[in-house]
Amino acid sequence: MNLKEESLKLHSLNKGKLEIKSKVKIENQKDLSLAYTPGVAYVCKEIEKNPQEAYTYTSKGNMVAVISDGSAVLGLGNIGPMGAIPVMEGKSILLKELAGVDSFPLCLATQDEEEIIKTCKYLEPTLGAINLEDISAPRCVTIERRLIKEMNIPVFHDDQHGTSIIVAAAFLNIARLTKRDLSKMRVVLSGTGAAGSMVARMLKKIGVGEINAFNINGVVDIKKYDSYDFLIKELLDDQIFTTPKEHDNTLASLLVNADAFIGVSAPNLVSKDMVKTMAPKPIIFALANPTPEIAYEDAKEAGAYIVGSGRSDYPNQINNVLAFPGIFKGALSVQASKINEEMKLAAAKAIAYIIKDEELSPDYIVPSAFDKRVVENVAKEVALAAKRTGVNRI
Amino acid sequence: MNLKEESLKLHSLNKGKLEIKSKVKIENQKDLSLAYTPGVAYVCKEIEKNPQEAYTYTSKGNMVAVISDGSAVLGLGNIGPMGAIPVMEGKSILLKELAGVDSFPLCLATQDEEEIIKTCKYLEPTLGAINLEDISAPRCVTIERRLIKEMNIPVFHDDQHGTSIIVAAAFLNIARLTKRDLSKMRVVLSGTGAAGSMVARMLKKIGVGEINAFNINGVVDIKKYDSYDFLIKELLDDQIFTTPKEHDNTLASLLVNADAFIGVSAPNLVSKDMVKTMAPKPIIFALANPTPEIAYEDAKEAGAYIVGSGRSDYPNQINNVLAFPGIFKGALSVQASKINEEMKLAAAKAIAYIIKDEELSPDYIVPSAFDKRVVENVAKEVALAAKRTGVNRI
Repeated sequence: MNLKEESLKLHSLNKGKLEIKSKVKIENQKDLSLAYTPGVAYVCKEIEKNPQEAYTYTSKGNMVAVISDGSAVLGLGNIGPMGAIPVMEGKSILLKELAGVDSFPLCLATQDEEEIIKTCKYLEPTLGAINLEDISAPRCVTIERRLIKEMNIPVFHDDQHGTSIIVAAAFLNIARLTKRDLSKMRVVLSGTGAAGSMVARMLKKIGVGEINAFNINGVVDIKKYDSYDFLIKELLDDQIFTTPKEHDNTLASLLVNADAFIGVSAPNLVSKDMVKTMAPKPIIFALANPTPEIAYEDAKEAGAYIVGSGRSDYPNQINNVLAFPGIFKGALSVQASKINEEMKLAAAKAIAYIIKDEELSPDYIVPSAFDKRVVENVAKEVALAAKRTGVNRI
Repeated sequence: MNLKEESLKLHSLNKGKLEIKSKVKIENQKDLSLAYTPGVAYVCKEIEKNPQEAYTYTSKGNMVAVISDGSAVLGLGNIGPMGAIPVMEGKSILLKELAGVDSFPLCLATQDEEEIIKTCKYLEPTLGAINLEDISAPRCVTIERRLIKEMNIPVFHDDQHGTSIIVAAAFLNIARLTKRDLSKMRVVLSGTGAAGSMVARMLKKIGVGEINAFNINGVVDIKKYDSYDFLIKELLDDQIFTTPKEHDNTLASLLVNADAFIGVSAPNLVSKDMVKTMAPKPIIFALANPTPEIAYEDAKEAGAYIVGSGRSDYPNQINNVLAFPGIFKGALSVQASKINEEMKLAAAKAIAYIIKDEELSPDYIVPSAFDKRVVENVAKEVALAAKRTGVNRI
């Protein structure tokens, strides 16, 4: 059986990947009177008196909704909410299996920004947090920002932050391994959507010197400011992106003497010849999915020192699974009201420092998605960062 | 420990009653590639091509949302969405433990009819059915009707239909036990809200002759038509409620020579003396919760032949648990698009005929909530009724 057949079989075998389980037994009238009427009324009244008690007496504190509108599912595009369900169920079971966090998928039959925002807000009472997923850019940014501002539980759009956190972890380890000063590095970023813009912000936060950006319209240039969407404008305003002095509007020109390339964009944009023009020991993260900006073998042959990809069959997989389970676990453990920048940075560091100095190598700069230490370490550091920044309730 | 202490302990012990469980294991890279990326993309594409395949490859077909706005929780009133969570979790685990149906609670932070309707509709893609719960009348009726019309999955408001189905089952058995002709019976109904109005409709459907109704404003009288809400107006229009020829606007006057009393109203409305004025071998269903219209002992002492209550510590408990698990199981088993009148009637008959003729007695006219035959029988008959009426998809 090939991957397609095997995956279809796995999904049809049990009709999906997710079920609900009762934590209490219901076998007789006594059980019923405690878990349901009349006993449950006392529990309701305790929560009515003090809503915070929902964290004591209900599943709220460990319950996440994985919410999508199906507008940007994996690399498949706008396949709608029904087609998105298998991905959201996948996310849900990863949260449970890797971090013990309960969650259920909700794929919405609307792609209207305001309606999605309202729906999420209406769902707050039962939830400990929301994981937004596979919503197209730049709508996903607007939606996430509004919800972070208007809700009292964490809202986290993994497509924006997941990749950026793992890439930041990788660059922290590149600095350790190569003894390079991040502030002296120039990074070329291809792709300025939701993921790309957050990658840029996280890299600046950990100290990367200069980031030049490229997208479907060419080199991002301050002179073209008015033509950009709000995401790119903000990155230029905040001097996250800088415009190279001279350029001919090609990716090739940006890569000359660049220290690193990060692609979250489109297949086959980078050639071996382009890699050869980069600074010595160049770093290549080709993360376009499923076909990367340059194949692992080609990048290596052209002299790349460290190559990261989205694929599990090559070294240095930039896999969101390293981040989101521990981040939710940590945020929920302290009843955080949001997942802020400090918590994401703490997650990046927690992932990076799983690997000891002496273990680091060009083929081992990020831990495996199945390294059991990762979730615990991320959760612990995220919880501490929540407390440091005062967004915790307990 | 008393009931309150025991119930609080049970709820806090595991922080709520509900968790999520993965149906597939995620232990290594292979598992991940099948249940999540890249394998899951093939599954998404199958569903994109044919949305009906969501029933094959996802948990949709067995997934129910238990939705409330917290506006009428148990007998506690409008305690809001947070306070309602323990009840909805209870409903969820009952669906799972009794019928194997997966579900999760959603308590909404809005009590606006239109917003509740929109939210439910947005949630359709991931769901096999919706159980509305503890929404105040008559809003619950409007919301349910709109959703039944506008959605393609079953929407069932248990507070309306649950009681009516069990009461109908009980009356079918009363006719069998007492060899009485339902068409010659006059029933006095106290309470004309969501539950009461559906009780009246179901009783007429099984053939009860005459129903006189009473509510907080006195005897329901066609002469006062304009003063009533739409629920009562419809019941008068449809001649479900009839106005007694002469009455002095008291419940006492209605009960004189009545064959049966059904209360879904308020505590202590019926006295022993009132019972004594009823026709021979009167039937009393005093279902107000937690304090009934008349205590079991008082009704018996006053000569009631059959007494039903909402309590588990007396015979003939009218417990919704007899109906909703099997109804959802049956509707989901044939991918029904709705739960229609024929399916509810089938459920009532399935519950009634669990008890054999020779087993029937005044203290045993409805089966126990823990009689394992009930769910299977209800599910089977509801599925058959769905097929007979053509609302099944498979």
